[in-house]
Amino acid sequence: MNKFLKEAISDFLFEYETPRQVLVKNKRVGIVCRLIQLAVLAYIIGWVFIYERGYQSTDTAISSVFTKMKGITYTNESGLRIWDVVDYVFPQHGGDSFVVMTNYIMTSGQHLGRCLELPGLATCVSDDDCVEGKHKRKMTGKCINSSCEVFAWCPIEDDRTIPSPPLLLEAENFTLFIKNSITFPEFKVVRSNLEKNVDLGNCLYHKTSDPLCPIFRLGDIIEMSNFKFIDVAKSGAAIGILIDWTCNLDLPVDECKPKYYFHGLYGHGDKSNSSLGYNFRHAKYYVEDKIEKRTITKVFGIRFDIIVQGLARQFDIIPTLTTIGSGVGIFGVATVVCDMVLLYILPKRDFYKNMKFKYTAEQGEDKGLTQSKSENENN
Amino acid sequence: MNKFLKEAISDFLFEYETPRQVLVKNKRVGIVCRLIQLAVLAYIIGWVFIYERGYQSTDTAISSVFTKMKGITYTNESGLRIWDVVDYVFPQHGGDSFVVMTNYIMTSGQHLGRCLELPGLATCVSDDDCVEGKHKRKMTGKCINSSCEVFAWCPIEDDRTIPSPPLLLEAENFTLFIKNSITFPEFKVVRSNLEKNVDLGNCLYHKTSDPLCPIFRLGDIIEMSNFKFIDVAKSGAAIGILIDWTCNLDLPVDECKPKYYFHGLYGHGDKSNSSLGYNFRHAKYYVEDKIEKRTITKVFGIRFDIIVQGLARQFDIIPTLTTIGSGVGIFGVATVVCDMVLLYILPKRDFYKNMKFKYTAEQGEDKGLTQSKSENENN
Amino acid sequence: MNKFLKEAISDFLFEYETPRQVLVKNKRVGIVCRLIQLAVLAYIIGWVFIYERGYQSTDTAISSVFTKMKGITYTNESGLRIWDVVDYVFPQHGGDSFVVMTNYIMTSGQHLGRCLELPGLATCVSDDDCVEGKHKRKMTGKCINSSCEVFAWCPIEDDRTIPSPPLLLEAENFTLFIKNSITFPEFKVVRSNLEKNVDLGNCLYHKTSDPLCPIFRLGDIIEMSNFKFIDVAKSGAAIGILIDWTCNLDLPVDECKPKYYFHGLYGHGDKSNSSLGYNFRHAKYYVEDKIEKRTITKVFGIRFDIIVQGLARQFDIIPTLTTIGSGVGIFGVATVVCDMVLLYILPKRDFYKNMKFKYTAEQGEDKGLTQSKSENENN
Repeated sequence: MNKFLKEAISDFLFEYETPRQVLVKNKRVGIVCRLIQLAVLAYIIGWVFIYERGYQSTDTAISSVFTKMKGITYTNESGLRIWDVVDYVFPQHGGDSFVVMTNYIMTSGQHLGRCLELPGLATCVSDDDCVEGKHKRKMTGKCINSSCEVFAWCPIEDDRTIPSPPLLLEAENFTLFIKNSITFPEFKVVRSNLEKNVDLGNCLYHKTSDPLCPIFRLGDIIEMSNFKFIDVAKSGAAIGILIDWTCNLDLPVDECKPKYYFHGLYGHGDKSNSSLGYNFRHAKYYVEDKIEKRTITKVFGIRFDIIVQGLARQFDIIPTLTTIGSGVGIFGVATVVCDMVLLYILPKRDFYKNMKFKYTAEQGEDKGLTQSKSENENN
Repeated sequence: MNKFLKEAISDFLFEYETPRQVLVKNKRVGIVCRLIQLAVLAYIIGWVFIYERGYQSTDTAISSVFTKMKGITYTNESGLRIWDVVDYVFPQHGGDSFVVMTNYIMTSGQHLGRCLELPGLATCVSDDDCVEGKHKRKMTGKCINSSCEVFAWCPIEDDRTIPSPPLLLEAENFTLFIKNSITFPEFKVVRSNLEKNVDLGNCLYHKTSDPLCPIFRLGDIIEMSNFKFIDVAKSGAAIGILIDWTCNLDLPVDECKPKYYFHGLYGHGDKSNSSLGYNFRHAKYYVEDKIEKRTITKVFGIRFDIIVQGLARQFDIIPTLTTIGSGVGIFGVATVVCDMVLLYILPKRDFYKNMKFKYTAEQGEDKGLTQSKSENENN
Repeated sequence: MNKFLKEAISDFLFEYETPRQVLVKNKRVGIVCRLIQLAVLAYIIGWVFIYERGYQSTDTAISSVFTKMKGITYTNESGLRIWDVVDYVFPQHGGDSFVVMTNYIMTSGQHLGRCLELPGLATCVSDDDCVEGKHKRKMTGKCINSSCEVFAWCPIEDDRTIPSPPLLLEAENFTLFIKNSITFPEFKVVRSNLEKNVDLGNCLYHKTSDPLCPIFRLGDIIEMSNFKFIDVAKSGAAIGILIDWTCNLDLPVDECKPKYYFHGLYGHGDKSNSSLGYNFRHAKYYVEDKIEKRTITKVFGIRFDIIVQGLARQFDIIPTLTTIGSGVGIFGVATVVCDMVLLYILPKRDFYKNMKFKYTAEQGEDKGLTQSKSENENN
């Protein structure tokens, strides 16, 4: 038994099986098949390996963003007023999503009390028209001068007309500084958008002449998003700033650089203007003469969402071999196609069929004959 | 030499090699092998291609979210008080993570000074019991009326009992409007959750009757997350709103629509109530009589995290051919299995072995014989 | 015709084709080829299946984070002042990105008006030196005491010297509590970082002795990020807290646990100190004697970005079979290599060539001869 096992192992180790093949010397078949094989090879090498980089594995980035606005402007609506960064940026701590105020409706000194609804919003003839449940504000039930009285933060904010031209039109010249740090955890690569050879003190982003400077003029961003600043500033808009890190880490890591793209958000898809309109209300609370008051500001502004998209590729033996493996599989398909041409289309197909196949007849039918035929050949 | 190269190339171009095969006419083997091959084919076509869509490449979305709450409510705790959006939403600028206050403990007029600790938290008999380092607040070292004096924002917030029923129970009827814009960067597809044929002015989300309306009643969200609003409103909770974009871009792009799911966050996994409890403190600072004061509010509320998950699929030649290629590979496995049946299990296995294999004897042993045998066959 | 079809189908069903092979009994070839095949097999099983887990499909997590700081400190700059959580955390609602103030320059009582620029920033001899456009603040055009007058929030903030030692050095002992909930949508697995057997009331994270406790001492985080707290506290820094969920869901789901990593953000990559420096301005607005005033604070602090990275793996039939399929393909490559050895390198290559190939001569040339040769063999 032991001896038998030894023999089987030595048989297995010292022998090698390779398929027997027919070499068909036929110009037509040869050229057709070589062309098919060439096409498959070109596809695997050209497309999968070179174009799609099938020899690389990929990793997406985890990222962190810090932003800082710069710029001061003035309004002269009701007395000269200065607006610096803390006044016009919401929220103030420099995250990846923030709003730069460009227009506003400010209602100062609101306190809880009774006052008349805005003209036209709740007209009445008698107190009976001012019953609760009918209106978005709490009615007191009194009709005064054809307008219902409400219990609310008074005076009521009048946002029926948006200031035009926008009050902070100068925001066009504000600058935005973006610090972005990304990590490709699988490849243990950390990159930052602060390039060593970019002078952060003086540079300004420009699509072609300074594409690596992380300081952006607001007017430029709006223009690159295909909006007009005056439209955007009046009623607000939402703008996405896409930082795209597509890195081939087989090249030196310094080649891994960010690209910046700008586009409007929340559009209906058909009309570029549909992204326009962004506002929210902001309140500052204070106490005056023991009474809690608030200044409510309806803020129209540009909301910036900084979206980081990182994709790194690096040579990896696994996808390389998987690609080769499945490429060999597709070569098998090419062989099947060529065989079909050979066996079903060519005029001499019966001859090739004979060359390629050896037949064993159905067991019961002509067992003796087959047996002898085969044994004869292998004698 | 040149001629030799030419011949080799023309030989290579004009000839085609195809494996020689044995055609075994045996019902048992035939059926077994065809069944195995059929199973492999069914797996590749049915499962990989149709079910898992192996002919498509995938892309994940980058996304941006804007939210807006609507609704007003009243409390009558210490005088009638109105709560509108700026009062009950934190933060106010409409990001993808925000809190809607449903209950609160407000401590007004806090200023820096000396006051007694809350009863029971720092009882004392003499000044010696009030030494520093023992307590979370800064002790002054004095014991007054059996309670230590502390240096703190006075009066000290008393959060020992949470108001019940919750003060802003009306929040159940507030509505949340979600604007969501996603981009599949690889496929250059941009989608928004604002459908053209949904009337944003009038609609309200309902799981079955209005699944595309992006306006949600808070009470409905809580119910769909399997909570009771009264529990959630009292002590707060964290709710995830998942917007799921699973898109087959081989269909018209309009078919790519969002689905909304709601679930509690931060649970222990075993008990649905464990997600309950969400609070933070919020302060409003002001100056009164030259003294800095603050109103601190312990906010119990519902924190909403809007999580967007986008996955698009589109026909792509690479995964198609890779799938075919590795499918052909698996066919190879089927052949190996069938060969094993043929050569090791069938009673006529020796006969088939003879048919399939041609032997070359060990080089040294019987070199002459093999040579002649083989030359004989190929005469 | 019907009968013909029936026969074709029964032929197809009841026959099986298997390649004919040469069994080469040659020690050298045998060993070389078995070694190549063994290497391929070892690669597929050892590397792809066991090391890279090619039998599993992967899913990335969607996640939600809630944070809560704890700790009180005191400053004695201009009178004893208490700092609690609402005073030193920005923003206050506990998101995944927040700043803990460690140092500050506070300018109280700013109001809109005229005042002198900081000494040295706008020196002048006459009013002509104070023309607009030259300076970042709005000049009034007057030169007073060798300094230009500006229209601004007065008094002007003097941030030329950063307080040292940092005013809130005690922040080192503050603690940060992180609640993190993740979902692997494809595998329908939800996990939270609140482990059942961790006592949240008493524990403190330690890399080795308590790696699952989600409560972190600020000083420890800074140390684990390779910074010194005193440096970080003075001028601020940005720290990333990476929560890594790498889960093998073929194991019990309880084995899926978070790991915490800490590192500085926004570095230039070459110098660990380059991440230092993080500040922003924060304003509190109030009204005093009918005049709007603000207290502006230049906040130096530690910005924490909590980044969650989740990757789950689970057995899946598709990648398993794809891996096997492309593995078979790579076996095909091994066969090609072995054949090359056999047919081009071995001394007996012509003999093996004869064994492996059957030639069909060029159609036109010697058609008759080939025909007879082949028919002879298959007689």
